[in-house]
Amino acid sequence: MSIVNEWLHKYGSYGKNSDGSITRTGGTPIYYEVVQALRAEMDKLGMQTDVDAVGNLHGYLPGSDKDAKSIVIGSHLDTVISGGMFDGMLGVIGGMEVVRRLRESKTVLRHPVEVFGFDLEESSPLGGTFGSWCVTGMVDTSTEDFEKNLQSYGWNLRDVAAAKRDISKFGCYLEYHIEQGDYLDSHKLDIGAVSGIVGIVRYTVRAFGSSNHAGTTMMANRRDALIAMCRLILASEKKAREISDTLVFTVGKISVLPGAENVIPGECEATFEFRHMDKAVTDEFFAAIQAMAAEIKECEFTFTDNCAQYATPCDPELIKTIDAVAGEVGASHVVMPSGAGHDANAMAHSGVPIGMIFVPSVAGISHHGKEWTDERHVDMGAEVLYRTVLAIDKKDF
Amino acid sequence: MSIVNEWLHKYGSYGKNSDGSITRTGGTPIYYEVVQALRAEMDKLGMQTDVDAVGNLHGYLPGSDKDAKSIVIGSHLDTVISGGMFDGMLGVIGGMEVVRRLRESKTVLRHPVEVFGFDLEESSPLGGTFGSWCVTGMVDTSTEDFEKNLQSYGWNLRDVAAAKRDISKFGCYLEYHIEQGDYLDSHKLDIGAVSGIVGIVRYTVRAFGSSNHAGTTMMANRRDALIAMCRLILASEKKAREISDTLVFTVGKISVLPGAENVIPGECEATFEFRHMDKAVTDEFFAAIQAMAAEIKECEFTFTDNCAQYATPCDPELIKTIDAVAGEVGASHVVMPSGAGHDANAMAHSGVPIGMIFVPSVAGISHHGKEWTDERHVDMGAEVLYRTVLAIDKKDF
Repeated sequence: MSIVNEWLHKYGSYGKNSDGSITRTGGTPIYYEVVQALRAEMDKLGMQTDVDAVGNLHGYLPGSDKDAKSIVIGSHLDTVISGGMFDGMLGVIGGMEVVRRLRESKTVLRHPVEVFGFDLEESSPLGGTFGSWCVTGMVDTSTEDFEKNLQSYGWNLRDVAAAKRDISKFGCYLEYHIEQGDYLDSHKLDIGAVSGIVGIVRYTVRAFGSSNHAGTTMMANRRDALIAMCRLILASEKKAREISDTLVFTVGKISVLPGAENVIPGECEATFEFRHMDKAVTDEFFAAIQAMAAEIKECEFTFTDNCAQYATPCDPELIKTIDAVAGEVGASHVVMPSGAGHDANAMAHSGVPIGMIFVPSVAGISHHGKEWTDERHVDMGAEVLYRTVLAIDKKDF
Repeated sequence: MSIVNEWLHKYGSYGKNSDGSITRTGGTPIYYEVVQALRAEMDKLGMQTDVDAVGNLHGYLPGSDKDAKSIVIGSHLDTVISGGMFDGMLGVIGGMEVVRRLRESKTVLRHPVEVFGFDLEESSPLGGTFGSWCVTGMVDTSTEDFEKNLQSYGWNLRDVAAAKRDISKFGCYLEYHIEQGDYLDSHKLDIGAVSGIVGIVRYTVRAFGSSNHAGTTMMANRRDALIAMCRLILASEKKAREISDTLVFTVGKISVLPGAENVIPGECEATFEFRHMDKAVTDEFFAAIQAMAAEIKECEFTFTDNCAQYATPCDPELIKTIDAVAGEVGASHVVMPSGAGHDANAMAHSGVPIGMIFVPSVAGISHHGKEWTDERHVDMGAEVLYRTVLAIDKKDF
C-alpha cells in the first residue's frame, strides 16, 4: 500500500464508529486529536506548522523565490455524523503527499507550498465551510445567534479575526476531493477536472389552503395544502428533468399544519433546493416553478429565499492543466462540475484562482460509512495533484 | 329568541376565548362548570339528575309504563381546543328541550326519557367518545398508558367501571347534531336524517428509498421517498374521486427522513385516512392504493393498519321516522351519512338502535370559532327531535 493510502486509512479512521462509519465533527476532541497527529506528520516533513484559533491546521513549506505567492492545497478534516473516511481528509493527505515527494526527491519549488486542513466545512450552526471562510476573513457574523454558536465551541469574535490569513500571498488554491456523486464511477472514468462548483438555490415554499374536518368535507370542496404542494413538487421534479440533465431538484423537508390525521392540512411548508452550474438555468427553473404554482388554483403559494449561493467557476488555466496532467498519467478523464460545495468556494470568493481534482466515489455513496474510493484512484489523484503542482510552479500568479 | 336558542347561546358560551371560539375540553374546570349549570337546569325541569365518576351528566324523566325501556337522547358537552358553540352542546340542549316541552304540555310519555351530556367525546389521550364508551361499558383499557392517562384526569379504573349503565334498559338512542360538513348548507336543505356513521380507515404509509447527497446525485439515479409518496398521494386522491363522490381521503400528517434540505429523503411517512359508509368501497379503495404503490418502482411501500372503525348504520325505523317527521314540519330534508364519528357509535356498538338528526353548518365550518347554525335551523331540529320522540313513544322496543 502506498504511503498516501496508508496515511488516509490511518488518519481517516479517527472517530470510527462500531458500524465502520466516521464521526469526527468539527471542533470536537476527536477532531483536535487528528489535527495534532497530522501536525506531527507535517513537522516530520519539515513544514512550519500551526493550528489557528478556530481549529484549522496549517503547514508551510518555503520556496526558492521569496517574492513568489504560495501554491495552497487544502480540504477539511471534519466529517458529518456517521460519515466516511475520504471526504475532506483525502485533500489534506494529498497536500502532505506533495510535500513528501518534494522532500524525497529533494525538489525545491520556486513557490511556497501551504497545506490547510480546515475545520467545520460540513454544515454546522456556524454555517458551512466555516474554517475556510475564517481563513479568508469572509465569515458572515450577522447570522442569528452567531456569537452564541461561537461560544458553544469555546470561541469568540477575536478568535475568528485571528484566523484570517494574508490572502494576497495565496497564488492559487488546489483541492483534491472525492466526487461524492456517481458520474465518474458509472462512466468508468478515473479523474475529473472540476469546471466549477454549482450554484445552490434554496427557497422555503408555503402553500395556504383551508384546514377542515377530514370526514365531513367532500373532496370537491377541499383546499388541501398538502395535495397542492404534492402537485407543485411533482411538476417541479418533471420540469427539472426537462430543463437539463445536470439540474438537480430536492425537497428535503416537508411539514403540514395542523398536522392531525383527521384534519385536512390548511398549510404546508417545504424546502425547494436546486443546483446547477449556470445561473440562467436556476433562474429559468425558479420562474417555471412560480408559474406552475400560479396554475394550482386551490391554494396560494409563497416563496422565501433562503440561500442563493451562485455558481463558482474554477480557473480556466488550472482546469486545463489538471485535465492535461490526467491525460499524461494515463487516466481516463473528464471536465465536470461539482454538485457539492467545498472549501474552494471560500478561496474563489476572495479572488484566489481555484482548481479541483475529483476521483471516483464507488456507487456515488458519500456522507456514509460505505463511502469508498479504490486505492488506485487515491494514488492516481495524488499523482495528478503532484504533477499539477510541478506544472504550475513554472508559472507566475 | 326561542328557549332552546337561549340555552344554546348561554351554555354553549362556557369557555369562550377572546377570538369568539370555545375551549371547553373534557374533564377541565370549565367543563365541570357547564355540567353543574346544566344539571341545575335539568333539576328545574323535574328530572332525576346525577354526574358520574368520569364527568358524564345524566338526567332521568320517568315514564308511565315502568317496564318500558328508555328513549335516550344525548351528545357531548366538551369541545375541541378553539372549537364552536354548537358541536355537541346542541344535542344535550335538544334533549332538555324535549323534556321542557313534555312538562310544559303536561305530557307523560309511556317510556322514560334519559338525557346524557357526555364527557370527552373529542379526541383525547383516552381516545374519542370516551364518556359514552364508559356508559356502555365498552372502553378499551388496553391502549398504551391508559391508566396513566386516566390518572391525569384524576380518575382510576374503578371510576370507569362505576360509569357503566344498564344498557338493557335503553330502548333507543337519539342524537341531534350539527352536520359539520357543507352538504345540507350547499344544497339548501334543512334536515338530514342520518343513514349511518361512516367507517374510518387509517393506515400509516411508509416509502423507503435511498437517502443521498442533494447536489451530487443526478435526478435519473435517485430513489427519492418523498417524490414516491407524492405520486402515491396524488394517485390516491384521484382514485378516491373516481370511486365515489362520498368517499373522502385525507393525508393529515407527513414527515421525511433524514429531513435536511440538502439530503434526498430516504424515507417518508404519511397517514392515509379514508371514510365511506360502505366497507366494500373502503376495501376497494385500499386495494387500489396498494396496487398503485406497487407500480411506483423506485421505492418500496409498507402499510400499517392504525384504525379500522367500520361503518355504523342507523336504525332503519328511526331513519324513516325522522325523515317523515322532517317532512311534516315543512323542512326540506334528505337521508344522508355522517362523515364524523359521534357518541351514537358507542350506543350502536352495544346494540342500542340509533337515530341521528342533522342541521346545517353554515359553509360546513366546524371545530372552529366560526362554527354556526342559524336560529331557525336550531329550532327546526329541536322540533323534529321532539316529534320523533312523540312518534316513537307509541312503539315498543
